[in-house]
Amino acid sequence: MHKIVILGSGAMGTACAKIIKENGYEPLIYGINENELKDLENGKNEFYFPNVSLPFFKTTSSLEEAIKDADFIVISVPSAALNSLFPYVLEKLTKKVILINTCKGFWPQTTSTIHYKLKEISKNYKNVKDIVTLIGPSFAEEIVKNAITFVSGVSENLEAIQEVQKVFANTFFKILAQQDVTGAEIGSIYKNIIAIASGMLAGLGYNINTQAALITLSLREIRRFNKIAGGEEKTLFGLTCLGDLILTATSDKSRNYTFGKNYFLKNEKSSKKTVEGLASIKTIFEKYVLTNIVELPIVRTLYNILFLNKNPNECIKNLLKISPNKE
Amino acid sequence: MHKIVILGSGAMGTACAKIIKENGYEPLIYGINENELKDLENGKNEFYFPNVSLPFFKTTSSLEEAIKDADFIVISVPSAALNSLFPYVLEKLTKKVILINTCKGFWPQTTSTIHYKLKEISKNYKNVKDIVTLIGPSFAEEIVKNAITFVSGVSENLEAIQEVQKVFANTFFKILAQQDVTGAEIGSIYKNIIAIASGMLAGLGYNINTQAALITLSLREIRRFNKIAGGEEKTLFGLTCLGDLILTATSDKSRNYTFGKNYFLKNEKSSKKTVEGLASIKTIFEKYVLTNIVELPIVRTLYNILFLNKNPNECIKNLLKISPNKE
Repeated sequence: MHKIVILGSGAMGTACAKIIKENGYEPLIYGINENELKDLENGKNEFYFPNVSLPFFKTTSSLEEAIKDADFIVISVPSAALNSLFPYVLEKLTKKVILINTCKGFWPQTTSTIHYKLKEISKNYKNVKDIVTLIGPSFAEEIVKNAITFVSGVSENLEAIQEVQKVFANTFFKILAQQDVTGAEIGSIYKNIIAIASGMLAGLGYNINTQAALITLSLREIRRFNKIAGGEEKTLFGLTCLGDLILTATSDKSRNYTFGKNYFLKNEKSSKKTVEGLASIKTIFEKYVLTNIVELPIVRTLYNILFLNKNPNECIKNLLKISPNKE
Repeated sequence: MHKIVILGSGAMGTACAKIIKENGYEPLIYGINENELKDLENGKNEFYFPNVSLPFFKTTSSLEEAIKDADFIVISVPSAALNSLFPYVLEKLTKKVILINTCKGFWPQTTSTIHYKLKEISKNYKNVKDIVTLIGPSFAEEIVKNAITFVSGVSENLEAIQEVQKVFANTFFKILAQQDVTGAEIGSIYKNIIAIASGMLAGLGYNINTQAALITLSLREIRRFNKIAGGEEKTLFGLTCLGDLILTATSDKSRNYTFGKNYFLKNEKSSKKTVEGLASIKTIFEKYVLTNIVELPIVRTLYNILFLNKNPNECIKNLLKISPNKE
């Protein structure tokens, strides 16, 4: 039987372990929080899933023990930990492995996406068969309740995706193969930006007509940006972008939307750090707009409001005014 | 000065009249409800917009007087009235006119869209320069409050759209030219179907992961259907489809979404008539699926639930099960 390892005892790591265990494997969870590991051994994870009954998991706090002889390694650590953890993982591999990444967005302190950086760092390690990133509308707290969930399995390598599909496939969890890595990642990053913009308009008191106008401009922008970056347009219709955005663009369950909506309330600016889309706005603005590679009016407008403290109503009115007369 | 006529004293007719009047024209509103006309002459429309102050409009209850010498005729009557009204309008035209249609969906008792049917009926009338249909995320109650609103001006004929843009253009209302009539209409019709499906899942107790999975399948279906019908894919990103759907797919402001959400509550089935998407499901199923022109699993599933009273949970589980493994 395959040895399948989960790095990370958080929400997504636990959810992946549960799927795999119920598919008949014996996943080993590596973590650094002794309380969480003890919980997991006793069939629960009180911090992330209070009152949810889980299988009894095997765990370890030894990264070396976890990695030894692994066939699949699921990477579900906080992205801030990747810099120190991942090179060590690569050094300790003892046999050919498929890496399954569930971390999203940009690699800390860089303008590279996590999937891209994982590929780059591991390219000289022959034990890495390939890396498959799982992205899509998948709240972990719904997965552990066996809610029907679809995610994209993103990799250039279809065979690697198919191997991951075999391990995860069951009646409620489905991985759809997506070989356009660039399009999938850009969609996944940009949808958070659109959710912030949409939330911000709600917070400023604009109504549905105006939110819809702005969202349509955003779709124009994401198509243009994706094309320049080399992604395929049809990928935007998939799970990582529109499939997720349609449900979260106006939902209080989206952290990006609520961040935008509450941004102009007092005392809310301190929550800046936790929102993925905010970091993406800064990264994309500095990497693409400031350097004149491409003009992105929505990203520029959000940057002006969020990082330069310009007047939001004026910025938004200007944005809507300069829009073209043709779809 | 152009003579601009509005046929219909309802919500959208009034909203269009207000835009045009504030742009310096003197629109004439034709209606059959004497109370509404009297209201409009006195700067209000209590039934549709209680407590909203409007300009003082000129009105008439004579269709012939309205049409005589008109340069632009805005058609904002209930679609059930089109069959009797429109041929009469054509007969009474005295000079070359651009028709501006704000009615959406299918022509009553046919499988033709309203725009298409208006074109067809008027093709032998040389006084009709062209027909421009306005579709998009535009709640009339927000327009009369001068909310920034974008709609698509849909016509094969760019010059006709540009003439309409001149009449309507101002700082808060913008018409974006859209020459892909088929794509615009299909997007506008299908988005209502997706909203019903999304609402139905919410009503059945499914959560976000599952709703997102279904919506992504819907996007796959709309792309395929649009292609077969001859629409362009990029049109789906515009105001008539995604720009509207993203905001209404999970919103209680969408009648289609709330219809789906409340469908399984007792006593809610009686509201069937009022929902545009419901009629579209039946029309599309009978015209395209029953005839084997194209298989549309979402439309088939909704038809099975809504018209054949099949078990909704089984239908939805089957639908998600048969979905392909590739995006």
